[in-house]
Order: sequence, then C-alpha cells, then structure tokens
Amino acid sequence: MKRRIRMGMVGGGPGSFIGAVHRMAARLDSKFDLIGGAFSTSREKSLAIGAELFLPDNRCYSDYKTMIERENDLPESERIDCISIVTPNHTHFEIAMAALDGGFHVICDKPMTINLEQAKALQAKVKETGLIFCLTHNYTAYPMVKQAKAMIAAGDIGEIRKVVTEYPQGWLADAIEGESKQAGWRVDPAQAGISCCMGDIGSHAENLTEYITGLKITELCADLTSFVPGRSLDDDGNVLLRFDNGARGVLYASQISTGEENALKIRVYGTKGGLEWAQESPETLILRRNDQPKQVLRRGWAGTGVEAAAISRLPAGHPEGFIEAFANIYTAFGNAIIARIDFDNKFVPDFPTVDDGVRGVAFIEAVVASSKSNDKWLKFEY
Amino acid sequence: MKRRIRMGMVGGGPGSFIGAVHRMAARLDSKFDLIGGAFSTSREKSLAIGAELFLPDNRCYSDYKTMIERENDLPESERIDCISIVTPNHTHFEIAMAALDGGFHVICDKPMTINLEQAKALQAKVKETGLIFCLTHNYTAYPMVKQAKAMIAAGDIGEIRKVVTEYPQGWLADAIEGESKQAGWRVDPAQAGISCCMGDIGSHAENLTEYITGLKITELCADLTSFVPGRSLDDDGNVLLRFDNGARGVLYASQISTGEENALKIRVYGTKGGLEWAQESPETLILRRNDQPKQVLRRGWAGTGVEAAAISRLPAGHPEGFIEAFANIYTAFGNAIIARIDFDNKFVPDFPTVDDGVRGVAFIEAVVASSKSNDKWLKFEY
Amino acid sequence: MKRRIRMGMVGGGPGSFIGAVHRMAARLDSKFDLIGGAFSTSREKSLAIGAELFLPDNRCYSDYKTMIERENDLPESERIDCISIVTPNHTHFEIAMAALDGGFHVICDKPMTINLEQAKALQAKVKETGLIFCLTHNYTAYPMVKQAKAMIAAGDIGEIRKVVTEYPQGWLADAIEGESKQAGWRVDPAQAGISCCMGDIGSHAENLTEYITGLKITELCADLTSFVPGRSLDDDGNVLLRFDNGARGVLYASQISTGEENALKIRVYGTKGGLEWAQESPETLILRRNDQPKQVLRRGWAGTGVEAAAISRLPAGHPEGFIEAFANIYTAFGNAIIARIDFDNKFVPDFPTVDDGVRGVAFIEAVVASSKSNDKWLKFEY
Amino acid sequence: MKRRIRMGMVGGGPGSFIGAVHRMAARLDSKFDLIGGAFSTSREKSLAIGAELFLPDNRCYSDYKTMIERENDLPESERIDCISIVTPNHTHFEIAMAALDGGFHVICDKPMTINLEQAKALQAKVKETGLIFCLTHNYTAYPMVKQAKAMIAAGDIGEIRKVVTEYPQGWLADAIEGESKQAGWRVDPAQAGISCCMGDIGSHAENLTEYITGLKITELCADLTSFVPGRSLDDDGNVLLRFDNGARGVLYASQISTGEENALKIRVYGTKGGLEWAQESPETLILRRNDQPKQVLRRGWAGTGVEAAAISRLPAGHPEGFIEAFANIYTAFGNAIIARIDFDNKFVPDFPTVDDGVRGVAFIEAVVASSKSNDKWLKFEY
Repeated sequence: MKRRIRMGMVGGGPGSFIGAVHRMAARLDSKFDLIGGAFSTSREKSLAIGAELFLPDNRCYSDYKTMIERENDLPESERIDCISIVTPNHTHFEIAMAALDGGFHVICDKPMTINLEQAKALQAKVKETGLIFCLTHNYTAYPMVKQAKAMIAAGDIGEIRKVVTEYPQGWLADAIEGESKQAGWRVDPAQAGISCCMGDIGSHAENLTEYITGLKITELCADLTSFVPGRSLDDDGNVLLRFDNGARGVLYASQISTGEENALKIRVYGTKGGLEWAQESPETLILRRNDQPKQVLRRGWAGTGVEAAAISRLPAGHPEGFIEAFANIYTAFGNAIIARIDFDNKFVPDFPTVDDGVRGVAFIEAVVASSKSNDKWLKFEY
Repeated sequence: MKRRIRMGMVGGGPGSFIGAVHRMAARLDSKFDLIGGAFSTSREKSLAIGAELFLPDNRCYSDYKTMIERENDLPESERIDCISIVTPNHTHFEIAMAALDGGFHVICDKPMTINLEQAKALQAKVKETGLIFCLTHNYTAYPMVKQAKAMIAAGDIGEIRKVVTEYPQGWLADAIEGESKQAGWRVDPAQAGISCCMGDIGSHAENLTEYITGLKITELCADLTSFVPGRSLDDDGNVLLRFDNGARGVLYASQISTGEENALKIRVYGTKGGLEWAQESPETLILRRNDQPKQVLRRGWAGTGVEAAAISRLPAGHPEGFIEAFANIYTAFGNAIIARIDFDNKFVPDFPTVDDGVRGVAFIEAVVASSKSNDKWLKFEY
Repeated sequence: MKRRIRMGMVGGGPGSFIGAVHRMAARLDSKFDLIGGAFSTSREKSLAIGAELFLPDNRCYSDYKTMIERENDLPESERIDCISIVTPNHTHFEIAMAALDGGFHVICDKPMTINLEQAKALQAKVKETGLIFCLTHNYTAYPMVKQAKAMIAAGDIGEIRKVVTEYPQGWLADAIEGESKQAGWRVDPAQAGISCCMGDIGSHAENLTEYITGLKITELCADLTSFVPGRSLDDDGNVLLRFDNGARGVLYASQISTGEENALKIRVYGTKGGLEWAQESPETLILRRNDQPKQVLRRGWAGTGVEAAAISRLPAGHPEGFIEAFANIYTAFGNAIIARIDFDNKFVPDFPTVDDGVRGVAFIEAVVASSKSNDKWLKFEY
Repeated sequence: MKRRIRMGMVGGGPGSFIGAVHRMAARLDSKFDLIGGAFSTSREKSLAIGAELFLPDNRCYSDYKTMIERENDLPESERIDCISIVTPNHTHFEIAMAALDGGFHVICDKPMTINLEQAKALQAKVKETGLIFCLTHNYTAYPMVKQAKAMIAAGDIGEIRKVVTEYPQGWLADAIEGESKQAGWRVDPAQAGISCCMGDIGSHAENLTEYITGLKITELCADLTSFVPGRSLDDDGNVLLRFDNGARGVLYASQISTGEENALKIRVYGTKGGLEWAQESPETLILRRNDQPKQVLRRGWAGTGVEAAAISRLPAGHPEGFIEAFANIYTAFGNAIIARIDFDNKFVPDFPTVDDGVRGVAFIEAVVASSKSNDKWLKFEY
C-alpha cells in the first residue's frame, strides 16, 4: 500500500485522556493519518480539536452518525478506512455497530461494551461484516509481555500452577467524582455499566492473565466492594481464580489503594520457573528458577527474543513506555488493514479482537455476579 | 537481675535449621545462657551438639521429660529458668505442657500446636500456671514492622480498607521430601498436622496481618491446593479476607512459587495512605499517599520512631536482618522473665503470646475447613 | 500558526538508529510534517526511506546541498521551514552551516561538531543569521530532569557541594566495529573526531551535569583509556571536576562497562539534600535529606511541579520514556519556530542551543587534553 | 579445643557504637567468651559496662596496661587469649603494641594506626611475636563479597578493566561534631589522624577494592575537600585509580552526601562481564554480561558457591546483615587462634591482616599527599 491509512475518531474531545493517547499511538509509527472525527457532541469542541490537529472543518463532525454518512459519500480515495472509538464505555456498542454497518474497520477502547448481550451482538456483527475489529488492551503489547507469553508457550517455566495478577491504583480513594470528569463517568452506572474498578482495570488484568499464560479461567470467586461513600459501583475487588489446566490464581484490582499509581503486575509460576512483569517497569521481565540465579531479561538485551524485538523501536536502556505499547496495537491493527487492502491472505493479525472483548465483558459480569452470590465458585462459561 | 537467664532447649539437634537460629537469637543480646538441652532423642546427637556448645555432658539430655525432672532436682541457683521448644510441630504441645507443669517459662516455635483443641488446652495451662509463654512469630519483631504498626495505630494512614499479604516460597516446587529433612516433616501429616503451607508460613502471614493492622479477621474464603504429586497436605493457598472494621483483603501463601526465596510482604491501604513492607528488604517501609511523594522510611533514619529504635542495634545503612529480629523476640521474652524475677509489676511484655498461638492454629483450621466447603464465607470465630 | 512545521532531514537512511528516533520524536506531538530529506548519499537508499514515509520522490535528495538549493526554489508555502541533521559527527558542521546559509532553522544531533573551531564558527553563524538552532541533548528533556533542575534552582537542596555523574555502557567492550555500523563510525577518528566515548556519551553527561545543577565546570582532571585493542580513540574515561561555586565532582563515561545498557545517572548533593536521577528509570527522582525519610518523586504525582507537568503526556504510572523526552526537544524547537513565524517576541525557548554545543565540544577537547597532560588541573575556559 | 576463646576488650565504653558491634560479633557464633576489659578510662564506666555484661569487677579495668599486666599474672587456664581494640584511631598503635608484647593475639578496628610509621612498626612487631593480628575490615566478610572475589579469581568476568568504588554517607553534612561523640573524634586530627573521611571510610573502600579484584592500586590522583566550615580534615574525597594490570578506576568517599546512609558500593567490569555489590543490599550480587540477561545472585540460592555458603547461617531470603558479616571476621580470627592452640599447621587464615592495615594507612597518606600536590599521578608504593 502506497499511502497511510485514513482514520476517523469518535470521542477524544477537549480534556479526554485516552483520546490523546490513541492519537499519539496512531501517529508514532507513521501508519495512520487522522483525517477527521466526531471528537465531541459539541460542534465547537469538535472543531477546536480539529484545529489543533490542522484538520479541515468539514471533516470535523459533532455526531458519529453524520461522520459515517458523510465519509461514505466521499470518493474511496478520500474516505476514511477505519474508525477509532474512544468514548465512555456505554456508547461503544452503538458506535461500533454503526461503524461496521458503514463498512469501516474499527479500533475500540475497552471494555468493549457494558453488557454481554451487546458484546455478543457486536461479535456477530464483526463476523457478518468481515471487517477488522481491534480492542485496545494495550498492556498486552508491551515487548516484555510478548516475551513472557512466548517463553510460557515454549515451556520455559513448565506447566503453570499459580498466577497472581494485581492492579492497584489509588486515585479514587477519595470521592473526587464531582471534580474529575475521568472519575465521574467511571463511577456512574449509566456511563460505565455494572462495574467501575473491575470494568475499568480488572478487565485489563483478566485479559493480561489469559494472554500471557495461554490459560482460560474456568471458575472464579469474587468479593467486590464500594468503599467510598456514595458510590454504587465497586472501587475494589478481590477474586480467586481456577484455570483450565488446574492452575489456581488470585486477581485483584483496586482504585482505593491509596498512593498507588498504575501498578499492574503479573506473576506466573510453573513447575520449572516463575515469571514476573510489572507495568510500571515495563522493560524488565524477571525469570526465577530454583536451580539458577534470578535473571532479569530486558527489552533489547541478550536473552530476549524475536517476539519482543519485532515491536521494539530502541536499543536496550533507552526506555520505551505506555505510548509505544499502545502504538504497537495501532500498528498491528494497521498492518491488518494494509494486508486486507493488499489482498494478503497470509497475514496473521496479532491484536486483541472482538472475542477478547466478549470474554472481558463476560468476566465483568461474572465477577459482579459472584460477588453477590453465596456460592463459592461461579463457573466462568458463556 | 545480676545474671543471665538460664535456658534449656528441646530440639535443635544436628541439621536443625531453626534450632541454630534460636540459639543465635538467644545469644545476640547477651541475656541468655544456654545451659543444656534435649537436643535430640539420640543421646549421641544430643551430646554432640552439647560439645559444640561447650556444655557439660550432664546437662545434655536425650529426652525432654528427663531434662525437666533433673533440672528441677538442681538447686534454684543452677536450674534453668526457661525452656526453648524448637521441635517439629506435632510435639510442641506435649513438651510445652510438660515444661509449664515443671514450672519453666516457655518460648516455642510456631505453629503452636497441630490442632485447636491442643492450643486451647495450652492456653488454659499458661493461664493456670501464670508462667510466661512466648511464641516465636519472629517477623513481627523487625523494627520496621513495629514502625508500621505504630503508624497505623496512630492513624497515619487513616481507616484501613484493604490488606494484601503474600508469602511465596519456591523450595517445595519439586518433590524433595525424600532428600530434605526440612521438607520431609512439613509435608507429613503425622508431624505437621492438617496443613503444610498454611501451617508453616500462612500462619506467619495471618499473624503479621493482624499484628500490623490491629484488625481481626472475621470471615474468610480459602482455596488450598496440593500441587506436587504425592502430597496430601496443601503446598499452596489463596484466601479472601474480611476484617472487623469492614476492610477486605487477600492473603496467600505458597511453597510452589518456583524461584521465590522467602518473600513475605504486606501492603495495607487506608483512607489516607498505604504502607508496604517486605521481609527480604526488612529495613525499609514504604509510605504512599495520594497527595505526597512516596516516602521510604528506613530503620535508623529520620522519620522512623521510637518503636523501631527501641529494638535496633545499628545505625541506618548497616543492615540488620532475620537473626536480629528473632533476637528481639528472645530479648522481649527475656525482659519479661527478668521483670518476673525482679518483681517488676509495671513491665508490659511485647511478644507473641499463647493467645496469638491459639489464633494462629484456629486460622489454620479455618482455612482448611473453608477450602473444603462450598459455602463462600466461613466465619472466623473460635 | 495554522499548519504544521515543514521539516527536511539530512541523514537517517536505512539502518540509522538516531534518524528513526528523530522522526518519531518529530511526529509524536503533531507539530512537524517531514516533507523530504537527503536521507542517504545513495539516491536509491534515500528514495527507499522516502517511500517508507510516503514522501514524493522529488523531495528525496541524495545530497544536502541539492536539498537546500531546491527547497529554496520552492514557493514559501511549500518550502521546508527547518532541517534536521542526523548524520555522523564529522559532517554536522558543514551541513549546519549550509542549512543556516540557506535560511533554514536547524535541529542537530550531538556532539555539535568535531572541534572547537568549527563549533565557534557555527555559533557565530547562528548569531549572524538569527535563525533558530537546537541541539538534541535529549536527556535534559525528561520531565524529572526538569523537576530536578527546578528544585535545585529553588534552593531545595541548598548549596551544591558534590556532583557524581556516571554514564556506563557495555556495548563496545568487544571489537565489534567491524560488524556494527553504529560502532564503526564512533571509533573512527575520521568520522567521530578526537574522542569516541567522551564525544558520544561523555558530552551528554557534561551537558546534563551543568543543566541540572546550574553550575559551571571550571577545572577538570581526566584519565581516558582505549581498552579494546586496535582502537585509537577512548572507550572509557574518568574525570575529576571542580565547579564555579566550589563544588567538586566526578564524571565518568564508559563504553566497555560490560553488561551495562545505557546507565546515565546523576547524583547532586547540597547542604540541605541530595537528588538522584537515572535515565533507565526516568520517571523517578529521589530526594534525600538527613532529617526526613527518602522521597521518591514521580512524574505526574503529587510533589512534582509544573516544569515536569508541562512536558508530560500521561498520568503517573503510565511510563513515558526516551522517545517522549526526545519529542520534548522537538516540540520546544517547534514552538520557537512557531513563535518566530507568529511574531511572538515574548516566547522564551527552552532547549539546548548552539552555546551548549560549543561548551560540549570544548569539554571534549578539554578532557582529551587533560588526559594527555601531567598537570593535575586543566582550567576549563574557552 | 574444648572451650571458648577468652577475650578482653579495650574500649567499648558507654555510648560506643563499634564496641557493642564487636561484642555482638564475638558472641554470635559462640566461639568467644568476653572475660573482661578496659572498657573506659573511667573506672566507673568500665565497671558499668562490666555489670551489663555480668563480668566480675576484678576483670574490669580502667587502663589497658593494667589489664595486660594482671591478665598475665593469672594462670593460663583463666587468662584471656586475645585482646579486641575498639578505641579511637590514635590509640590503636600503642595498645596493639602492648598487647602483642604482652603475648596476646589482637583483633583491632580500622584504620590500624594514624600514620605509616606506626603501621610498619606494628607490622614488624606482629612478625616478631608471631602472634595473630586481625583487622576488622568487616565489609570483606559479607558472603556475597566472597562470592564476587571467588568469581573474579576464577576468571568469570575476564580481565578487569574498570573498577568504581563509592562510599557516600550524609551524616557529617552539618557541623554536628559538637553534639555527637562519634562525629567529634573523627573530625579531630588529634584522635583521627590526617584524614577524617578517607581514614574512616575511604580506607574501607580501598580495602574492598583490592580484596574483591585481587588487583593492586599503583597510581592515584586525589581531590579531598573539607566542606563543612571549621573542619581541618577532609569530609569528602574523589580519587582516580590505576591498577597493576592496567585497569582504571574511580574511588570516592564522602560524609557530606546529604541523605545517604552507608552506601558503600563496588562495580567491577572485565572483558567478559561486570559485577556489582552494594553494602545496603548485601545479600545480592549482580552479574552483567553482554550476551546474557542480567543475573541476580543471592546468598543461599543456586549459582552462589561454596565461599559464600561457608560463612552463611541462614537459607536464602532470610536476610543476614552487618553483624553477621562482622561475626565472620571474629570467627575467622577465632579459628586461627584455635588452630594455633591445637597445633594445626595446615589451617589457612582468611581475614584482614596487619599487611592490609599497612596498606590502608599507606593509602590514606597517599591520597592526602596527592590531594595537596599539583602532580597528576602519585605512585602508590610503600
């Protein structure tokens, strides 16, 4: 393909955190051109973002439906190829359905939808349209996460017995929802769905757990809590896990762990070794064995393999971070679009799909249900 | 008191790890003289240890009953004051009962007994005899653990909401019980009781959790597993916790976390801050707040208070470790004996007591029962 | 300004590390459009890079002189505004001179030139043309470096007494210059100038030292070594420093410190406190005091000020890294160009200038001279 | 030998830090009995310490000469075997000479003497008497220091090229000498000799450097400073080093590095690998290679050899620290005495000797001389 992929965005208006991240991620590897967007339901705000991005006014919409319609009226050589959805959770479903119906590939923030019914309908729509759908579970795209997944798949740590995934944050320890827009929609059932903490970050933890280990959670036992007075959704949750190979685990997510930043961390122990990865030190992967010294694998250094190298931009010791990992998702999505346009049937995409999205939403529903139940184990099937 | 406390030991024969630790701990602060012991049920082995320690042969016994009897025949000016019990779990009860009946103060390794019935009988005996009984939950005697406890008691982190206590080890990931005496008795129900991992290290985690937080566990939900083929007792366990103030928690202990050494760690999050302490870096206590930079408190440095200073021996940056913390338990026990001998009624002892021991054994029974149950929550009352 | 800045690049052909970094850095904040370049002296290679970047063939040159000439023939509305120089050291001077003579703003990799004479000539040229010149001492653009500089300027650690700057790498411990293009030009006097290690990374260390502390080095005593057989330039160097306020320091750079990645680190001790920053953990700044616990300041967290916030893109715990810091240099350079175009006279630029470049080259000459001298102290004046 | 070694102590009165450390170190492994001492020149204070230690009054002296005389009057079966010297630097010489003349083995704190003349006289006396003399350079007795030395000796990191030894402390950043006895004597030329910082901790750094590497310093270039007003001795010093095999190095010691505790650290880089050890995390040794992941060797874990195991007391993950390392020195000294008493001619002692003491004092004199000189390199011969 001799041009960049043309992208439109829904959401990402003034003050949006994740919209700006998606734009940087799309830019970093020079695969996408952001051509336009419905950045806000306010026309002024949408135009303001467009101006910042040097976009023509006529590609700045205040309404995703209009964007889809107008873009489809443009000649193919100008029309956007794909739509990036960066709005609050409760709107993902209808925007994604409309985008797919409009014939556009979709890259969507997580959680995919606010209930399983929507998720399955969206899954069916993706299948029906044959379009490409990517969910931005960005943490799986860190090079050393790929390294961990590859080592586990190769049997480097043997059969997995135990997995501990933790995701503590502290920023919602106080009732800041009045002042903070970011906090506001997350604790609001109308916008966030049935869960705050588990929906926002617990689903990342679930996705990372299954991604790295290659295992499936089969049973869980959850205890969710709303600690801050006035909240109806959980701001903390602890979950016991059982996996399809007999492994056991603990997963917890918390937004009231005062003083924690974004401390997602996973430890996987097998019969032959243990691996540890922490998002706040993403360039490092720790390998432990009973019969060797601890090894500290590093992105770009000896002992780290091709999977990590394929998505690295810099030599070891030149830190890559969150934006780079996020860009890896965009680049993988972009490569899939290019392969499609170039009729490359051999291309194997590597990014979180609509199926991951369904599983994530199912997980959120399962932990909420388990937390309300007196039964110990809830089967995680769907 | 113008002399050292005279101590006899039961257990601690050749190859014993914990016996040697108890002896170093007793020596470090020069409060105790180890006068004799029933170090082994083999007379030769008991004499061999005695010779290493330059003890007279006639104070080296092959039998704790004989030791208690003979020592009681000695004049008070020569007789031991207390007995240290460092044998495998299943023998603690009978030795401790006999020692107390013989009129000796007791310092005993943990877990205190192998069932709750024994534990309560021992508790009653301690009350009846009025003698001093100390349980060596050594991890509570690290200076920075005391610091954490003091800060929490002072309200420094506000009301506690969440506690995460983890204790992974890797040394039992393989079936080494054939070769290793240390492993052998721990996985043997006849010697270890109803639990391996939870009894050996989970009870340390429980004790540390309640000690630091000042909270009581009221409900728990456990999932214990025996991963290594051939084992009947757990070598791994995950537990959800609920506390008397409404806080929630996770506690896990594992001996199959391949590559982990002795990684006991606790994190406590309150409304105003979070504290983290890790046994493998025991000189450091991390304080997190949402409105301040992370603080790294250090033993001996500014910001660390009198509670830690009282049990420190060295300036900051001169690492103290496991033996020193263990010695703090001995010294606290010794001070209580001295106060008794000196008729000092104002002395307030600070060491784990028989009541902690009962609670520890109750915890082990509770997690084993919970793990077998289909009910989600087991009330932790006894 | 209602458009992006148009940029041309010299260097950055196939296999170039730093050229790709400059391009990502220029893209990240969407301030620049890379319009063309003389990416390689091979026309094929230059076109190949152009094709990767979707540039028209007629803007891909094989020769910087042609680029400057042709771009000047274009109407102002199409012409590039600035030139990015990412070639080996020995060519910086002539390219930068030509670019300035051509009327283009310049952003140039370091070290600026291969001798002080060139550096001063370039400094004069910048002054004469009034054009904007930026040197990519990227390490000064990490948010927590700005935080450190701001704290020191505000007197937070008192009067500075001691500075320790270290920059160990290990990648040149073996004679890899035959296989590695990156190694090849660095150890070649014809391309690198009079120094390998001190020119390549020692000058970063010097720049960072003076930038953070606000002090000037006044005397130095150096010991440079070529350890790997066959090299004529230094691959390691140790330097004692004296500063204008009486402070003392140590600076060392090394490329034969086997196993080290890119471990630039600075510690500054004043009468009231000490600061420590390490490039491989760039989001963290450690503050030590004698009368308080150690503080760990973090980008995006409480206690970190406006200087860091102004150049941050993400919340705390979402790691930013090398590319983001490099992008901060580009964005600062871009903002200066925009201010120039917009006739904004109040704009205060914040990036390394031609004066920093002169000082850097002078430093390299000074350490080489000192290393050869038997006199202890060499005055660092120029 | 069927008894403990009988020891007398000179110094270690009320408030002494190092005296208490020596006593704990001597006690830990149960090899020594402290029988008496001249703990203070005040008889009351000497008796007070004796009472704390349950010593008979007639073995508590106020004068080391009296102690030596009286002990020699006792029958051999009661007499002390050795003398521990823990007084301020300026008195070491005369006490050690007298102790050796009295026929006692000596263990002495460092630096050995306050000038090279004394040091050489003491060396001659040790040779003449044939008695055992041990200098407590305790940092060389950490297990992972022995591990590092063994690995280097075995060629694991190849030929050494670079050594960086740093020893920053912050406690003398303010003029606390008025209030602090510990500070007072160290900054007083009459008691400390010609150097404060280099004598107190720089000599540890020098000893550790040569011990671990097996190299000898042949040339040095020093810059010492007295930063705190009113001090005549150095409180900070930076030194360039050259070694007998051509390796280069940096050594610095500082007591005005505000906020630092006791941060002795050494990094050694060879042709095949690099090693790093830091005293504040003494259980860990880091091994870096260009062709492998970083390895973290730990006391007690796989990959750590017999040299460390021989002086370990606990399994991995059960932290040993400063007192344990100090005890290793005592135990090695004790083993040498036992071998002497038992006529064991095959015993090979492993502790710092009078020769190390001479070298340490020579180093202090050399750095002081170099710092005053305008010549760059001072030959380190003596």
